[in-house]
Amino acid sequence: MTEFRYKDAFSANGPEPAARFTGLPKYNFVYGHNDPAQVPTEALAEAAARAIRENGARLAMYHLGDGPQGYRPLRDFVARKLGATRGISCTADDVVLTSGSLQGMDLVNATFLDAGDTAILEDFTYGGAIGKLQRLGVEVIGAPLDSDGIRMDALETILKDLAGRGVTPKFIYTIPTVQNPTGSVMPLARRRQLLALSAEYGVPIIEDECYTDLAWEEGQPPALYALDPSRVVHIGSFSKSLAPALRVGYVVGGWDVLSRVLARKTDAGSPAIEQMVIAEYFGATFDQHVASLKAALRRKLDVMVESLEREFGTSAELFVPKGGIFLWLKLPDHVDVRTFAQSALDQGVAFNPGPEWACDPDAAKSYMRLCFALPAEHMIREGVAELARICFEHTGVPERRGNVQQTS
Amino acid sequence: MTEFRYKDAFSANGPEPAARFTGLPKYNFVYGHNDPAQVPTEALAEAAARAIRENGARLAMYHLGDGPQGYRPLRDFVARKLGATRGISCTADDVVLTSGSLQGMDLVNATFLDAGDTAILEDFTYGGAIGKLQRLGVEVIGAPLDSDGIRMDALETILKDLAGRGVTPKFIYTIPTVQNPTGSVMPLARRRQLLALSAEYGVPIIEDECYTDLAWEEGQPPALYALDPSRVVHIGSFSKSLAPALRVGYVVGGWDVLSRVLARKTDAGSPAIEQMVIAEYFGATFDQHVASLKAALRRKLDVMVESLEREFGTSAELFVPKGGIFLWLKLPDHVDVRTFAQSALDQGVAFNPGPEWACDPDAAKSYMRLCFALPAEHMIREGVAELARICFEHTGVPERRGNVQQTS
Repeated sequence: MTEFRYKDAFSANGPEPAARFTGLPKYNFVYGHNDPAQVPTEALAEAAARAIRENGARLAMYHLGDGPQGYRPLRDFVARKLGATRGISCTADDVVLTSGSLQGMDLVNATFLDAGDTAILEDFTYGGAIGKLQRLGVEVIGAPLDSDGIRMDALETILKDLAGRGVTPKFIYTIPTVQNPTGSVMPLARRRQLLALSAEYGVPIIEDECYTDLAWEEGQPPALYALDPSRVVHIGSFSKSLAPALRVGYVVGGWDVLSRVLARKTDAGSPAIEQMVIAEYFGATFDQHVASLKAALRRKLDVMVESLEREFGTSAELFVPKGGIFLWLKLPDHVDVRTFAQSALDQGVAFNPGPEWACDPDAAKSYMRLCFALPAEHMIREGVAELARICFEHTGVPERRGNVQQTS
Repeated sequence: MTEFRYKDAFSANGPEPAARFTGLPKYNFVYGHNDPAQVPTEALAEAAARAIRENGARLAMYHLGDGPQGYRPLRDFVARKLGATRGISCTADDVVLTSGSLQGMDLVNATFLDAGDTAILEDFTYGGAIGKLQRLGVEVIGAPLDSDGIRMDALETILKDLAGRGVTPKFIYTIPTVQNPTGSVMPLARRRQLLALSAEYGVPIIEDECYTDLAWEEGQPPALYALDPSRVVHIGSFSKSLAPALRVGYVVGGWDVLSRVLARKTDAGSPAIEQMVIAEYFGATFDQHVASLKAALRRKLDVMVESLEREFGTSAELFVPKGGIFLWLKLPDHVDVRTFAQSALDQGVAFNPGPEWACDPDAAKSYMRLCFALPAEHMIREGVAELARICFEHTGVPERRGNVQQTS
């Protein structure tokens, strides 16, 4: 390994250098991995072969010749899917395909935000969203949640306070359907209240629906964008409904928004083969695939809930999610999960500490997020048992595991 | 189409909103499109199906479980290819796979640059590179070229002048092998001089080799990175050697560089299926594919040169490239190609005006870049004839086409 001579030339700003990847943890409850057994490899292989045979020559053209909004058949599918499942009336013209919903968020952030701006997020929310805004120099304000999503009384107080200080937040970022990390779904009445507050205070809404397709029950409330496209930008993804290593998401909005998003999309296009494969596979099998994936995820959630109840008893308050791949839980107030996260990782158990998923990290010190989608069921059981053992060693919690009093 | 209500909320900075895509021009000589007939659709279809059958379950994990540097078999292939073709000694650990070489450039720029920094580029160079640096608030200085790449006397003068003003440029960005747009190849002796100047003035080199695989002749001089990895960051791509709609490139460098590149790569991974397909296909057929692609491109280049000579005669000075997909040409000094670029586009003929590929736009006003890879041979002939007709209408050049004096 050669040493680079010009370390002085590196930017003085920016994040700490990354550490070397040293392999995956044995009990892997972090990030948004999914269930390997649910990747439809044979059907995807056939879809890929068909799509490339039919349209592969178009790979010689940027954007497959369909322009910077992305592969037209996939945009058509997104519009159909959003009509059928989210109540959204749109066409391929209203869709920009992105490299995962993360790029969608980056482009939307760049469209709206300058350093010094203010944005409102849910107080527990996707850690990546918080980090992106902080890196842009944006002031992040967390709106309190209950089991139905953002509390409207609290949001109104925040908006009123900001207005009193002459501040108009640039947007409210929300994950209304299968919230990350809490797994809640915002009911229709509250969605209407949110839109009313948006209108009253003149604040747009960025709606991140990347987990919506994995809501357990049919008949979820319509997307905010469906209720009022003039106030909302809609972001979605195929990373959750198909596979996270695929990097294809989408932004849906009016042309005044999309034209600014596209002006900032200087990547010469999002992955073309992945767009082709998703259009080919999901064009025929979306409902069936998602139903089967959800059934598998619910089984794993059941195993995780059962394991946590056995290992942690009443020490862990579980926020059983209405869909998705995460379980959010709270340990007693005196527990700070940061005190044993690294030790757990060293012993092969990886979880996401609550503080990484919170606008106010200290307020989430007793919380953790567990992804239940990747490990096999016996690994969920073993991993939760290991987690309880390590947690007890560091915090004295849980005092009882199963029916057995713990001793240190 | 719904109007978005909150135009006031948009960032005050940033680029102009994009225009709607209205289809491809009839005679398309712009961008880095490639030859649709040379996309190996059947072999790619088979490779995709094989790769997904074998490794598809790993799509359930971010980065296919191989960590943020990307799919291990493709990193292994990159290391092998760079050893065999560019004289570079490296391993998979020294490679970060990116979403096209454009993302590689963005990440490398972010690793080195802050607003107010200075960078040296070739005076005619990739327009996207100039734009990226300008958007970062970096002062761009163009180093003059001759038919062997950067002129070392001129570069030394620039470095000396900057040193006299107390300025150390953050890097020298160069496309040494099949330069864009001029198509030159920097000889070995000059590469050594460049590295000596890098050492003398303490300035790193960013080497963009995205067209190298398309150099006509075997036995090109080794990459700058091969000659001294301690001073160079190497960027490459599969967009040119396979297909531009595929978004997979790579950055090769020491860990102190790569650890900073990775810290800024917050996209949750580059396209996984594309990495798998490229590894599977190129693992077996790289040499053969590239040889066949180059033969097809050289035939198209011949057609373009012949058409330009017929239509423009001595009015056009052609810089016949040593590889790649572009021809750079110069019209007489009094011609400003910007005066007819839009009119040509309106009439179905798209070319890249020289000023967009120049650090000093006015200095390139009589130049244009033509991509010859996409259009069929008869379309090259027709398109060049149209171009000559339109150019004559606006500028009186060329005075003669074929053996016929033009009249307006």
